Amino acid sequence: MAEQKSPNLAGVFSVLPTPFDPEGKVDVASLHRVVDLYIGAGVNGLTALGVTSEVARLNERERVLILETVLERTAGRVPVVAGTTADGLRTCIQFSRAARAAGAAAVMVSPPRLAKPNAEAVLAHYRLLAEEVGAEIVVQDYPPVAGFTMEASLLARIASEVPLARTIKLEDPPTPLKVARILALSAGTPVRILGGLGGVFLLEELLAGAAGTMTGFAYPEMLVAVMAEFLAGRRDHAADLFYRYVPLMRFEFQEGIGIAIRKEVLRRRGAIAHAGVRAPGTPLDPGTQAALAGLLTWIKESQGVGWISV
Amino acid sequence: MAEQKSPNLAGVFSVLPTPFDPEGKVDVASLHRVVDLYIGAGVNGLTALGVTSEVARLNERERVLILETVLERTAGRVPVVAGTTADGLRTCIQFSRAARAAGAAAVMVSPPRLAKPNAEAVLAHYRLLAEEVGAEIVVQDYPPVAGFTMEASLLARIASEVPLARTIKLEDPPTPLKVARILALSAGTPVRILGGLGGVFLLEELLAGAAGTMTGFAYPEMLVAVMAEFLAGRRDHAADLFYRYVPLMRFEFQEGIGIAIRKEVLRRRGAIAHAGVRAPGTPLDPGTQAALAGLLTWIKESQGVGWISV
Amino acid sequence: MAEQKSPNLAGVFSVLPTPFDPEGKVDVASLHRVVDLYIGAGVNGLTALGVTSEVARLNERERVLILETVLERTAGRVPVVAGTTADGLRTCIQFSRAARAAGAAAVMVSPPRLAKPNAEAVLAHYRLLAEEVGAEIVVQDYPPVAGFTMEASLLARIASEVPLARTIKLEDPPTPLKVARILALSAGTPVRILGGLGGVFLLEELLAGAAGTMTGFAYPEMLVAVMAEFLAGRRDHAADLFYRYVPLMRFEFQEGIGIAIRKEVLRRRGAIAHAGVRAPGTPLDPGTQAALAGLLTWIKESQGVGWISV
Amino acid sequence: MAEQKSPNLAGVFSVLPTPFDPEGKVDVASLHRVVDLYIGAGVNGLTALGVTSEVARLNERERVLILETVLERTAGRVPVVAGTTADGLRTCIQFSRAARAAGAAAVMVSPPRLAKPNAEAVLAHYRLLAEEVGAEIVVQDYPPVAGFTMEASLLARIASEVPLARTIKLEDPPTPLKVARILALSAGTPVRILGGLGGVFLLEELLAGAAGTMTGFAYPEMLVAVMAEFLAGRRDHAADLFYRYVPLMRFEFQEGIGIAIRKEVLRRRGAIAHAGVRAPGTPLDPGTQAALAGLLTWIKESQGVGWISV
Repeated sequence: MAEQKSPNLAGVFSVLPTPFDPEGKVDVASLHRVVDLYIGAGVNGLTALGVTSEVARLNERERVLILETVLERTAGRVPVVAGTTADGLRTCIQFSRAARAAGAAAVMVSPPRLAKPNAEAVLAHYRLLAEEVGAEIVVQDYPPVAGFTMEASLLARIASEVPLARTIKLEDPPTPLKVARILALSAGTPVRILGGLGGVFLLEELLAGAAGTMTGFAYPEMLVAVMAEFLAGRRDHAADLFYRYVPLMRFEFQEGIGIAIRKEVLRRRGAIAHAGVRAPGTPLDPGTQAALAGLLTWIKESQGVGWISV
Repeated sequence: MAEQKSPNLAGVFSVLPTPFDPEGKVDVASLHRVVDLYIGAGVNGLTALGVTSEVARLNERERVLILETVLERTAGRVPVVAGTTADGLRTCIQFSRAARAAGAAAVMVSPPRLAKPNAEAVLAHYRLLAEEVGAEIVVQDYPPVAGFTMEASLLARIASEVPLARTIKLEDPPTPLKVARILALSAGTPVRILGGLGGVFLLEELLAGAAGTMTGFAYPEMLVAVMAEFLAGRRDHAADLFYRYVPLMRFEFQEGIGIAIRKEVLRRRGAIAHAGVRAPGTPLDPGTQAALAGLLTWIKESQGVGWISV
Repeated sequence: MAEQKSPNLAGVFSVLPTPFDPEGKVDVASLHRVVDLYIGAGVNGLTALGVTSEVARLNERERVLILETVLERTAGRVPVVAGTTADGLRTCIQFSRAARAAGAAAVMVSPPRLAKPNAEAVLAHYRLLAEEVGAEIVVQDYPPVAGFTMEASLLARIASEVPLARTIKLEDPPTPLKVARILALSAGTPVRILGGLGGVFLLEELLAGAAGTMTGFAYPEMLVAVMAEFLAGRRDHAADLFYRYVPLMRFEFQEGIGIAIRKEVLRRRGAIAHAGVRAPGTPLDPGTQAALAGLLTWIKESQGVGWISV
Repeated sequence: MAEQKSPNLAGVFSVLPTPFDPEGKVDVASLHRVVDLYIGAGVNGLTALGVTSEVARLNERERVLILETVLERTAGRVPVVAGTTADGLRTCIQFSRAARAAGAAAVMVSPPRLAKPNAEAVLAHYRLLAEEVGAEIVVQDYPPVAGFTMEASLLARIASEVPLARTIKLEDPPTPLKVARILALSAGTPVRILGGLGGVFLLEELLAGAAGTMTGFAYPEMLVAVMAEFLAGRRDHAADLFYRYVPLMRFEFQEGIGIAIRKEVLRRRGAIAHAGVRAPGTPLDPGTQAALAGLLTWIKESQGVGWISV
């Protein structure tokens, strides 16, 4: 492993889905196309093995296959973050070391599930992980996955005590308010916060001080465009774009079927061959399918987004 | 109590907030104005003593005061639904009888909290309530309040076995899919489903077969307009309106601070004198306040909604 | 209200059930008998309006009736703690003031339920309550009721910052370990911890430094006997008694049916006329009934506890 | 894989812990000793890769190593059940096929974690698993692991519709009542229910109709003795033994530290070399250690259980 500088974990990071073929096997060719599509859309980085990647339904060999596929195809064009969450610290360290050795710029880690979750155990987990792995850690704050809510004060404390864990992927709503609270509690510590939640509060997260977003929204062009306007100081234009796109973000980010919707959007975009999710994930129903089609048409026609795939 | 026909629980029902004065007392004059504003906006009905009403933070005298105030001010212009959820069946019956006696068209009831929640106990609760009260019951499906998720099959079973409990206020996302499932499981039973969730999925809920929405969104004009277009068969126009308004619905419907945002919108509209929520509710922070102002301005100016209050 | 000294909230505090007659009304005569039975058993105090009292299924008038009944019947023989938990601070203050005015020695308060529970809001709740009411507060740590787990560090912080809130009723297992942690984090602050959980870990809680227990176990004689031996320094005898009694404590403390079992024990003891719980509480099933009878017989006969009611 | 008859999943099944050396690696020699100790204690079967085995903190190679170690050492003396729970059906099938191929008598499977858990998805999971694997399935009903409570009616439905899934490991308290309910709902279907919860309700589960218990209690001799007396029709003797042992079962079965206590007991018994649990599991604290020592001494001396290790 060559010397790696601290990666720039800011801007738009797209969480990659895991495409499967009709038999349920990982579809590498489709994954290649998604990587190319997202990099072509101007994202600042990619994230593999996240919740949107259906990581909980992959076995260990598939994890390796997917991460290697993404890293090879990306070929250094953007940094790649690898999800390495595990309930055991030892497994988390193994996953993290392997990810670093393979070339991941950082690892993304959610608190371990515990019979009695508590702040001290979570803090120790990140501290020991940082000591053992020496890699940049994205602290994933998504309570449904961890079964534990990290309050703003705990996230600030982790950032303060574990210098490698100063990037937060925030998905505990209301995210704009939590961004503001963490930043207020972290004065003097260079904390970077990435929003999430499918981009549904991207504008408000940025206004609150977020450094970007890390999410699986299947039209990252829209996130990139909003970010670019925002960073250029054209907040009104950023807002105007955002408000036109947010009906789609909202639609895609539906509990329990969000991943299926994202995959369907990517299928429509020609990126993935099949939109299926692995069981016991909920497949797309005809009603949601039809509502999606209507919404895409509206964005294309009424909002003048000619490049959108209907 | 005069003879009451089965109310028409369809269309847009607005859940009323409870305005407080700076000392935290119920502000009756402001409540009058909200009632008038919402009826003027064309809603089909009002709901008092819901989650948006901060009902959990009211004492019993305040419950009575508020319901009487709303009923008097409404004066029969639209039907009024009264929230009468209680952890004990006996208290729920008392609240429900009082609400009926006062003139409420129906009661809205969430499953009782139980140490070991289960479908049989919930079904029995609704059955016994119907037997004892004889009033139309809106079954409130909002898992965070009840600590229990009623699956589509249970809601269909309640509707089948308890004829007075065939109206469902659905707030368990993804609501459009759940609407479709309940209706599919209820073939032959005249179930009416009202969406919720701040209106954020109103269009999709209607497309799935919902009969309306019951929510506390502070611009019910927008919900009414979407409904009207939808019912008139102009689905494209309904969708166009909805997509333009949904960025605001999404913003307002933020976990933990949604009620504070709604009250601030109503304060800006001149309906309520003070926007404060009761402790330990989270008050509005400056960042959310500013983001709200920007969003209202955008809707007014970019989307040509001249009547909106900025 | 006369000047009240700080009560001695230590030893065995029995949480009183609420007996109902066959129609479901509060049975005052039975409640009198329970008060007398428990005081006769040597308890150091009583607690009214707790979870075991089915407080969530009482209306406000019943709350007043029960507290007054208990206070009158107790007539100062032991201090009485009143449960005054409410989701709204304002209601909690009202309940607490009324309880103090009626003569309660202290109030017992669980954290308010919140859409987004967090440590700061909980701390503020106790601080404001203390400021407004000026009474001794028993901080109830029973996560299933509050929907929030107060970590040891938060309980220590509350004790440090709110001098009136230095008594903790601890029911978040493993309680012995949590007792030890809170005490270690509270060095210098005179924190008093009462165990709970039906007495199932009474011995271990005492060994860890607990000052007593507050629970609804229907044979408080057993708790009193264990405490007495323990306080007299006869730990082996305390342990021997405890281990002989704990099979019953364990049996009684069953999730969802514990209150029904307690009431049945009190009915067998002649204290309450009817053992029914209010709907939607689960009534006692024949299997549990039979197993209870067998266990009581065993304690009476094999363990030489002649005074037990079979 | 040779032809395998339906295993007799009844009586006492001991869930095996995973011993680790001081560096945290799997300690095969200690695992051998635990297998021998438990078989020598007269258990009817063993279970590998359960919650007590810290299965969530093992990687896939370790899973294979442990299962093979257990099967080899057991050498057919008793049937071995293998935990094969996975969030994805495909992974669950892979684990289950491998377990069967290695010689496991049955697989134990908890419902998969889902963003929106529901009865239909859980039923489908068991049905598809049975179709694909063709092995006996122990349905594990332990809500904290699955994030979902299977009501008695769902368990009865699974047993009815999936003949290979008619053995239930029940750990949703109150277990005696749930045993009775499932059996009542399953009239005509040969359902076998094994209790759990550390044996804390073994007697009452048997009285309710359970066919045995499957738990990690580190003195299975006690469970075996109670079962034997019970099956021989000497219920009073079974009860007498049980009530004397249950203080230890209760102590061991403490949330969050139960596995650490079990390992310490096995270390004291000379079976495992080191009692450590994997991070982020909570290690044993001195207070719990001391209380355990006192309790073991009491059982040995006061209850005449001379063979117990203090």
